[in-house]
Amino acid sequence: MTKRILLNCDMGESFGAWRMGDDEHAMPLVDQANLACGFHAADPLTMQRTVALAVRHGVSIGAHPSYPDLAGFGRRHLACSPEEVEALVLYQLGALEAFCRAAGSQLAYVKPHGALYNDLVRDDALFDAVLRACAGFRAGLPLMVLALADNTRERRLAESVGVPLLFEAFADRAYLSDGQLAPRRLAGAVHHEPQRILEQALAIARGEPFADLDGQPLRLEADSLCVHGDNPESLAVLRRLRAMLDAA
Amino acid sequence: MTKRILLNCDMGESFGAWRMGDDEHAMPLVDQANLACGFHAADPLTMQRTVALAVRHGVSIGAHPSYPDLAGFGRRHLACSPEEVEALVLYQLGALEAFCRAAGSQLAYVKPHGALYNDLVRDDALFDAVLRACAGFRAGLPLMVLALADNTRERRLAESVGVPLLFEAFADRAYLSDGQLAPRRLAGAVHHEPQRILEQALAIARGEPFADLDGQPLRLEADSLCVHGDNPESLAVLRRLRAMLDAA
Amino acid sequence: MTKRILLNCDMGESFGAWRMGDDEHAMPLVDQANLACGFHAADPLTMQRTVALAVRHGVSIGAHPSYPDLAGFGRRHLACSPEEVEALVLYQLGALEAFCRAAGSQLAYVKPHGALYNDLVRDDALFDAVLRACAGFRAGLPLMVLALADNTRERRLAESVGVPLLFEAFADRAYLSDGQLAPRRLAGAVHHEPQRILEQALAIARGEPFADLDGQPLRLEADSLCVHGDNPESLAVLRRLRAMLDAA
Amino acid sequence: MTKRILLNCDMGESFGAWRMGDDEHAMPLVDQANLACGFHAADPLTMQRTVALAVRHGVSIGAHPSYPDLAGFGRRHLACSPEEVEALVLYQLGALEAFCRAAGSQLAYVKPHGALYNDLVRDDALFDAVLRACAGFRAGLPLMVLALADNTRERRLAESVGVPLLFEAFADRAYLSDGQLAPRRLAGAVHHEPQRILEQALAIARGEPFADLDGQPLRLEADSLCVHGDNPESLAVLRRLRAMLDAA
Repeated sequence: MTKRILLNCDMGESFGAWRMGDDEHAMPLVDQANLACGFHAADPLTMQRTVALAVRHGVSIGAHPSYPDLAGFGRRHLACSPEEVEALVLYQLGALEAFCRAAGSQLAYVKPHGALYNDLVRDDALFDAVLRACAGFRAGLPLMVLALADNTRERRLAESVGVPLLFEAFADRAYLSDGQLAPRRLAGAVHHEPQRILEQALAIARGEPFADLDGQPLRLEADSLCVHGDNPESLAVLRRLRAMLDAA
Repeated sequence: MTKRILLNCDMGESFGAWRMGDDEHAMPLVDQANLACGFHAADPLTMQRTVALAVRHGVSIGAHPSYPDLAGFGRRHLACSPEEVEALVLYQLGALEAFCRAAGSQLAYVKPHGALYNDLVRDDALFDAVLRACAGFRAGLPLMVLALADNTRERRLAESVGVPLLFEAFADRAYLSDGQLAPRRLAGAVHHEPQRILEQALAIARGEPFADLDGQPLRLEADSLCVHGDNPESLAVLRRLRAMLDAA
Repeated sequence: MTKRILLNCDMGESFGAWRMGDDEHAMPLVDQANLACGFHAADPLTMQRTVALAVRHGVSIGAHPSYPDLAGFGRRHLACSPEEVEALVLYQLGALEAFCRAAGSQLAYVKPHGALYNDLVRDDALFDAVLRACAGFRAGLPLMVLALADNTRERRLAESVGVPLLFEAFADRAYLSDGQLAPRRLAGAVHHEPQRILEQALAIARGEPFADLDGQPLRLEADSLCVHGDNPESLAVLRRLRAMLDAA
Repeated sequence: MTKRILLNCDMGESFGAWRMGDDEHAMPLVDQANLACGFHAADPLTMQRTVALAVRHGVSIGAHPSYPDLAGFGRRHLACSPEEVEALVLYQLGALEAFCRAAGSQLAYVKPHGALYNDLVRDDALFDAVLRACAGFRAGLPLMVLALADNTRERRLAESVGVPLLFEAFADRAYLSDGQLAPRRLAGAVHHEPQRILEQALAIARGEPFADLDGQPLRLEADSLCVHGDNPESLAVLRRLRAMLDAA
């Protein structure tokens, strides 16, 4: 493993009186925190507090912009135009950056959330809109996308606007042969056994092949693993993963 | 008149399919545009377009943050804690700054909107919260407040966090003796005759006394006059005011 | 013309400080008012006032439920599940009915708005969800849908839950050969000449064929014509249409 | 105890992906469920499901309308006009009634939530606005208010519009001498010991005096006790309270 793989986690997903996640316990275990920006979760005070928590633990802060859909937690596709997407991503990047700035930090990267993340896979115009938002916000601000067997498309689109890409992979999800995540409705789409998750994480960290949903070998080049820490079980796996990667 | 007085105007107050104001015609006539940040008006696309319009005309961009109340246009008091106010102002400053940044500009000042603006007059904790948001966002970012007969309180609070103040006055509103705006329910609270508005504007620009609601002389030191340009009548007055000040 | 054709119009589309439409002038000219329910437009006070206006003019009140999307005016598809659609339509029917009830009236029909209206054309599960909302709300409450050359599908789905259908047609829109509206991006999709609009209205009112986008004859069986009255031009056409139909 | 005292509980307070409360376990233990209507909590699907749960357990459904403030959970005063309050309460009553109706039930009463509930204590115009909403929605629909040592004011206002009142009391809160709840910032404002809660409940149920915050005897005439069941501790107390009242 020449390059250390990072751990990223969605955080700051409480909203007003409603709690979600266990950021206090997960934050010390990750490298990158994807923070909700108020469109699918988080209110300004939650954002301010989660930024402070990330800064306290030296964790990189990523913006986690979403379609505007609190009631749907940003998981429902909303037919926005590319112009609307560029503007709503810019809005959210700025909103989160304000808290980073006030805490002496700044946004380190952008990772779209939920339905917006999924829509980027097949819609070049939306992907380009998000890239333009990143480039317009700050030259060199990276966009985090899904590591595929072949990321030629994403690299080509990003290069045209000069946006660096970060690639993330999942240790607890089964993959199709092209590196897309197996849809959750398929049997075996989500790994639940900690050992299986740790093995897939280690393979990805080492750049080694692991078994896709059909048992065929798949190799992904990833900068970061997306992890969860919102309940005791996922926190336990996260602790073992953190220890394993630190020891590697 | 040693210092040139500026003209500021609330803009960017459309929301989605709903239009408000006549920014296209008013923008070339003013020096400072107070732009809605999505909490009382404006959506991300409206913000992006209004920032572009301001940049095109060389107009300074001010943030116009509000309590979160689209249905009430930010005109209704909402009992937020100082912590909530600091966070929601920071959020809105950042959101607007993102569009400024993408357009090669940056926020020039902050002017709270509606009920939030009014609440600052009598609540030191809220005033301090807004000041902390300004200072946290960028050292030296000015806050625009109401010019009073005596702004000692505001100067003292602002100095303690190092935030410069800008003072605005109104040419079309009658004043109480202490420089507070006469409540709209009082007869004569709003000037409608263009000549009266222009005379009060000129007096304020020159630092000369003008008649308050009771006919007594009042002198205000102001950096900027708040103007309106959302209908043909107000635009006509604004054009005459612009010409008068340019000629002065 | 054995059955009198009605005129329906979208109304109550103001929101807070933002005005839309000219309900005061249009209301006396129509038979059915489709009232926004707070999800794409309207706030509670606007709903209450528009219901009062409709009652004053003896106009039937229809609910105009939408996806929850104020910023997009309900025109953007939102990927809601059928369960979510049933619930959000019920919610909106009830909200509007409360104002009808307080004004001594009641909902007369339901006409989905914008993207939701469009989605019903091709998604049986969503159509069924809206039907279940109607049936659950009140036995016999009619649903208004687009009159097509062949409405077999809609009749079949509606009969299975016992919901009466009302069919609406458009005098100012060009049609495809199957009775679908010509997409707005096509040349000639919208009729602007009053004479053309009046002729198409009269043909539909009489159940006679008129020319579709390709000039071929199309016959639609409709209960109601969807009209507009939000500006002086559309109001002028609406007045002529009202007079023509009253004279017929 | 000639009249059986009822137990009411705030429920249906989840929102989208965020859970709150433990309605499944609390519902079988109460007589009246105060259901959020989408303004401080609940989305349409949550409302539909909570209504179904209440109907399944034969629990009376009350509307729990609020100021529009999801981020603040309806706990922040919002300066609405009486006209706005009447309209927003009507809106919420109707929305909830739709789900009751579809489930073969109907609203049994109205209990304002949070800041709106508190504002009614001292603002006759707002109190009257809520009363008008109740009366407009359905003749005889009761409004639930705080039982005080002297409810003359509430009875007088309610009688003028013919709205029946229900009075609720709290077993886990300390009272001032006039029957107002002791503010939470005061020491001893909230009872935590189950035995103390049960004793106060029994006294209220029997119409007997109990000790107010200053140890002086206070007697309240109440129709219902407001209880909580959102965590294991409160559920345990609720179970004992239910058993105690059933045995009385």
